[in-house]
Formats: sequence, structure tokens, C-alpha cells
Amino acid sequence: MAAITPLSGFPELLPSQQKAFDGLKRTLEQVFLSFGYQGMETPAVEKMSTLLSKGAAEQEIYTLRRYQEEQPHTEAELGLRFDLTVPLARYVAQHQNALSFPFRRYQIAPVWRGERPQKGRYRQFYQCDIDIIGENTLSKAHDAEALSVLVTALKSIGINDFQICLNHKKILIGACYAFDLDEQQHADFLRLLDKQQKISAQDFKSQLQVFLTPSAMALFESFCQCQGTLDEALLKLEALPITHAVFQEGIAELQQICALLKAFNVSDKILLQVSLARGLSYYTGVVFETFLIDAPHLGSIASGGRYDGLTQHFTQRRHYPGVGLSIGISRLFSYLLETQDDLKHISPYAQALILIQQIEALPDYIALAQYLRSQNCAVELYLESKSFAEQLKYAQKRCYRWIISGTAQEIDQKKWFVKDLRHQTQYQIAQEDIGPLLKIQ
Amino acid sequence: MAAITPLSGFPELLPSQQKAFDGLKRTLEQVFLSFGYQGMETPAVEKMSTLLSKGAAEQEIYTLRRYQEEQPHTEAELGLRFDLTVPLARYVAQHQNALSFPFRRYQIAPVWRGERPQKGRYRQFYQCDIDIIGENTLSKAHDAEALSVLVTALKSIGINDFQICLNHKKILIGACYAFDLDEQQHADFLRLLDKQQKISAQDFKSQLQVFLTPSAMALFESFCQCQGTLDEALLKLEALPITHAVFQEGIAELQQICALLKAFNVSDKILLQVSLARGLSYYTGVVFETFLIDAPHLGSIASGGRYDGLTQHFTQRRHYPGVGLSIGISRLFSYLLETQDDLKHISPYAQALILIQQIEALPDYIALAQYLRSQNCAVELYLESKSFAEQLKYAQKRCYRWIISGTAQEIDQKKWFVKDLRHQTQYQIAQEDIGPLLKIQ
Repeated sequence: MAAITPLSGFPELLPSQQKAFDGLKRTLEQVFLSFGYQGMETPAVEKMSTLLSKGAAEQEIYTLRRYQEEQPHTEAELGLRFDLTVPLARYVAQHQNALSFPFRRYQIAPVWRGERPQKGRYRQFYQCDIDIIGENTLSKAHDAEALSVLVTALKSIGINDFQICLNHKKILIGACYAFDLDEQQHADFLRLLDKQQKISAQDFKSQLQVFLTPSAMALFESFCQCQGTLDEALLKLEALPITHAVFQEGIAELQQICALLKAFNVSDKILLQVSLARGLSYYTGVVFETFLIDAPHLGSIASGGRYDGLTQHFTQRRHYPGVGLSIGISRLFSYLLETQDDLKHISPYAQALILIQQIEALPDYIALAQYLRSQNCAVELYLESKSFAEQLKYAQKRCYRWIISGTAQEIDQKKWFVKDLRHQTQYQIAQEDIGPLLKIQ
Repeated sequence: MAAITPLSGFPELLPSQQKAFDGLKRTLEQVFLSFGYQGMETPAVEKMSTLLSKGAAEQEIYTLRRYQEEQPHTEAELGLRFDLTVPLARYVAQHQNALSFPFRRYQIAPVWRGERPQKGRYRQFYQCDIDIIGENTLSKAHDAEALSVLVTALKSIGINDFQICLNHKKILIGACYAFDLDEQQHADFLRLLDKQQKISAQDFKSQLQVFLTPSAMALFESFCQCQGTLDEALLKLEALPITHAVFQEGIAELQQICALLKAFNVSDKILLQVSLARGLSYYTGVVFETFLIDAPHLGSIASGGRYDGLTQHFTQRRHYPGVGLSIGISRLFSYLLETQDDLKHISPYAQALILIQQIEALPDYIALAQYLRSQNCAVELYLESKSFAEQLKYAQKRCYRWIISGTAQEIDQKKWFVKDLRHQTQYQIAQEDIGPLLKIQ
């Protein structure tokens, strides 16, 4: 019999970590629900034709076939989703007549990628996405709302030291025109901006010179100075000698969004970063990434933006503009486990353990457990035949704070023995008084 | 562009149904947690060697490979889980040194089977399992607890008219000896009992005669009379002229469990059914199935039993007896959607909609929304530029009960206009008073 070796790239949690993760998920869901977002769940499996519509890295997609079958067994070839955006696009296109717009949805679910596993790269991991999809129109106020959901969500899980770097595609495109770049060069130029952090300053500069004349280079340098809080950076951008209409539209949209971010009371978390591009083709308005101030090495923990062509591969009857973002919940969870002490010490067990002092009275202990459960207390019953000393050891091993028991005589008198192992205090009380006691911190 | 056709066998829910399903799952989880069960989540993917260990229907397993790759790309061939029991066995064996026993876990998660889709048969569907696993020993009291969790769980989701049919493998095996069956015949005989409901009475009788002599047939008929409440049926079983030790053990164990079921206050839901076998090899003690009284055609909605050899394919260092059950949550959910009116009319939206009466005051409406969210109210902001009349139409289309708005003058006076569309009542109140109002039924 071979020993069980963990399956590389498919991590799983032990119970206390699982409880921490479930709590994290639940907290995020509550935030999303409070903004009117709807929970959505799509099957893990999609048609390959759907999955390939986005032009994803094909070789990373897991396809399905039945065991020992050479060919796919159905009319449609099937694969596992590699993100939550493609399924969203397919869902919106498929159910467009049954949905009401703007459609706000969240989905916290695993995705699968056939990558070579390495540190921080998994073959199954969670994504946490929210999107607002409009029908034909979607006002820019929704962009501010999405950013506000992100700030609220991160704070709700105890993350306070973070910065959202925001930019607008129209500012970038308008600047490209001002730098005298051909439209065919825009994509390559923005790709260069995106990789600025990954290459040396010298490499960056020499690659820039391929695109920019000396006068454009001077303008680019002034452009790059327009960083900082939204208010400051917008003033600097306005002062630039760039008059292209697309650039001016970008500034106007950011000004509008900036005013609303103040109303949402989240503008202090947001900086303008004019070099942020996030690729060219998909996003059409705001784009943003999020960094932890004390863990920048994690990279962006939440990214998103405004897009127009979500459903274009599936339907052209209507147009569905949207704004959305993805929180890297798997990566964030690893970080939180390392940094938040209360997450490290979560007990996966119940609130209290009932010890069986006299086996003849087992029905009484059971009745007490059932009563406490009806009072919304989680209690574990010790059901093996072991000595009281061994049961106590068990309670300590599981780090129970509260244990409950009683002798036949105490039970006859409708009293129970309750002990707080953390503070070494004990009580002899009626069952009605146990529930409130367990809720004391 | 091809129209999107639903993927056969992979159902998905619209938002209001999804909210109902999420609520159902959450309610069940709360019950499991209240008994001290721990949430567990395993990857969707397991090694094929793990999946094949149970001797499952191999051709139903979906295997994975990367797109356009002929051969599996890793050392281990991978497949999607087809149930939650095999992953549990692998998890317990793999993490045996990190887990604390008895290990109570629940898992509510999808499984995948490459079946031909047909009504009520899906290729992806949810299973909801609970199990208690002991290390080397696990007292029979845990069997009673598992049944009690089942009763509590079903009641918690509004199912009250159901019956659990219970039997004990030792009673069946003991009876087989008393019917003079060879041990080699036991499995076939129990299989015949299991299919009794599926064949005609005449077929059943003629197949019985292959196994039973006339005198054994008479005993079998008396045996089959031992139905009814546990107390009644146990008295009848004791009165039978069967003295085989295994049979007597079965009766003694059931008597013990029966007494505890009364303590758990669930015995009124349980009937003894001596013909229930649930296969031979896996279960070793109690076995049970659950039927809805007004929908017996659904078949068993929750089944389980006591088993000994859970981890035998993965480890022989220790022995892990267990008792567990699986609730057919997908099937049950379809039934609840059809029968429970309140589930049919769940709104997937927030509690209240804030209408924008004067666009200049948008920051005030946003601040109100943020305030209400901080008070645990879920509110949607209407963020498109539409007339007030159109916003009202939108509120009605989404069946909002509560709408909130205000003119600039009202907002200046720190009053908001709140209307209950259901009862056609309206209020002019301060923001602090809105939250409590929304909670009124």
C-alpha cells in the first residue's frame, strides 16, 4: 500500500484553517450583499468553445473525458474554467432575458489551471470576483461603487494598510497620441509601461527610445510626474500640454469618479498611477491594482477595471458594459494566516464540550446538548466510554474554553457544573443560564 | 455567432434560486456546526488511483488532461471526484497525525459523474455529507448522534413530514444464518432484499425460493413482520426464534441506539425496516434511508450508516471506524422550490433601493447608502441618470418593498423619505431611524 502523498498544486486546509477561510469568505459575502450584489454560481465545467473565446493560454486549460475513453464522449468538448470572467460572460449572454440590469454579482469559487506547480502557483485556487453589468449603458458612478466595495471588503477582513493604484485607459490612449505614436504602436507601448517594474531602468529607457522622439520623451517624463492623490494628480494632468480629446475625456471621467469616491469615503486609499495599463484590449476606462503597504512583494492583491466587450463572443443582440474586479483571495488568505494572530488560533471545534460524568445519566447530558443547540450554542458531546480524567485531557487537547458536566445528584437538582478552563472559574447553574454564559468573552 | 445553448447535465441557477440555495446550505451548515462538526473542503481533483480505490463505476469518472495534450501531463493521472466519501477517506489517511479524533466533518460540495444526462440525473450536482470518524474505536452513541443531526437538519430547512427507515447489518446477517444461507449466499440474498421494491411481488417470491427452504421461508415471513417503531419492532425481533449471536448483538446495539434516540428526542421519526440492506460490503452496523411522506417517488433523500473500513485502501496503520450520511441536497432543493412558497419568491436584491431625486445631491445619497450598510442594511443605489418615474418603475420591477429618497430640501433638514411599497405607507425620518424601520416585517 503506497503512502498517501499530497497532490502537488492542489492544496487543502486542515480544519482550523478551513474555519478561518470559511469565515473570510462569509465576511466578504456579507459586504457584497450589503451593496446589493447577488451570489452567482456556475458549473465548474464549460464547453471548450466557451473557454477558448477569451484567447486564454490554451495549454493551461484542463479538458475532461470519461475514464479510458479516447474521444470526448459528448457533442461538445468540455473543460474546467480557468477564471470567473468567461463564465460570467457566458451566463449573462445565456440568461440575458431572465436577468435584471444593472446586474451586480459576486462569485467566490475555485478555478483550475494546468500549470507546473511552484511556490504561490496552484492548479486549483480560489478567485473572488465582483462585477456590475449594465444593459447598453452603465454610468461611471458604478466605477466608484466598485472601488468602494473593494475598500470595504478589504477593511472587513482586517486589511487596512493598502493602496489602490488607479488609472484610466483614455488618459493613456490620449497620451499615446500626444507622444506622436501610431495607433499600431499603442499596444506595444502600453505593454512596455506595464513591464516597467520588471526590467532595469536602463532597459526601460532604451526601449522607450524606440517609441519616443526626444520632444515626446520630455513630455513623457512630465506625464510620469502626475502621480499622487487623485486631486493632486488630476491637477497636474490638466496642466500638461496635452489637448487630445480622448485625454480630456479621461480627465473628465476621472474627475467625476474622484468626486464620488469622496462621497463613498474611500478616496484616501486611492492614488493615481499614470503608468498603469493592464494590457490594452479588454479594459476601456478605469483600471486599478491594489498593493499591501507592508507586503508589496505579494504583487497586486485585487485588480480590475471598466470593460465594454464582455459578452461580445456570445451575443451581439445587446451591448453589456461592465466594471469589475477580482480579489486574490487564496494569496490574501496565506498572507492573513501569517500575519493575523487571531486567524492562527481559530478552534475548529464547538464552543463547549459536555463531559459524561455518569454514564447512566447519558440521556440527561444528551438532552442538555440538544437544549443548548436550540439556543444557538455549538456543543460537542463526549460519547466514548472513558474516565472523567481522560475526558478532561481531551478537552484540554482540543483547547476547549468551556466544559460542562454534572453528577447525577446535581442533574437531579437541575444544576450543571460549568467551568471556564481559560480563567479557571466555575459555576453551578441551571441550563437556562448556560447559553448566556458561553457568549461571554 | 452560435447562440448559447445550455450545457446538458450541468444546471445553474438564476439569482433568486441561487439565494434560496445559498440560504439552504447556510442553514444546514449552522446545524452541523452546532453539533461540533467541522467544515472540510477537498480539491475537486484527486489522483485516479485514489478515485478507483472504491471500485466505483469507472466509466463515470471524468479524467483531466491539458488541452490538446495526448497524454496526462503529470506523473499521476487526475480525475474529478464522483462522491465525497473517497476524498474523506484519503483526507483522513493523509492527515491522520494532524487531526483530532473523533473527527466530525461536514462537506457540502459538487461532485461530477460522466453519465448520460436525463431527468433528475446530472453530471455535476451537490452532495451534503456528514461523518464522525473515530480512531480505533467509536461508540454506538455516535450512530444516534448522526441520526439526530439528520433529523435536526431536515427540520431546519422546513422538512417535517419524513420517515427514516433504519436497520442493522448484524440483524440481517444473523437472520441469513437463521435462514440456513451459506455465507457465499449472503451478498446475493441481501441484494435481492434491496431490490424488492423494484420488482413485482411474484418475481420477488420466485427469486426468494432460490434461496430459502419452505421452513426458512416461514421464518423469513415472520422476520418481515418485524416493522414499526423501534420499540415495537425490537420486541417482535426478540420474540423470533433466532438465537444466532450476531443477530442478538444487532438487537442489543439497536436497543442501545434506540434509548439514545429518545434522549435526542428524534425517535418519533424513525421506523425499523428489516428488509433494508444498502449493499453488503461497506456498511457494518446501522443502515438507514429517509423518505418524504408526501413525495415517496423522490426515493431516499438521505442515507447512511456505520462503516469500519473507510481508510483501508490508504492506510493500515490504524483503524478508522465511522458513521455518516449523505443528504441529497440537489434533489431536495428542487423539491423545496416546488413546494415551499417562500422559497419561490425570494428576492435576490438588497433590502432597500435608494432613488436619486436630485443628481446634484448624489454624494448625499451615497453617504446615506454607506451609513445604512454600516448598520448592516443591504441597500442598492440607483446610479443611472433616469427620471424619478423610471426609477420608481425599476423599484417595482425588482419588487422592492422599501425605497428611500429625498429632495435637496429634505436632505438639508436631515430627513429622508422612506416608502413601504408593500403597505403603501411612507415616512419622513432621520437616517438613524431608517435601519430599524427596514427590519420591521
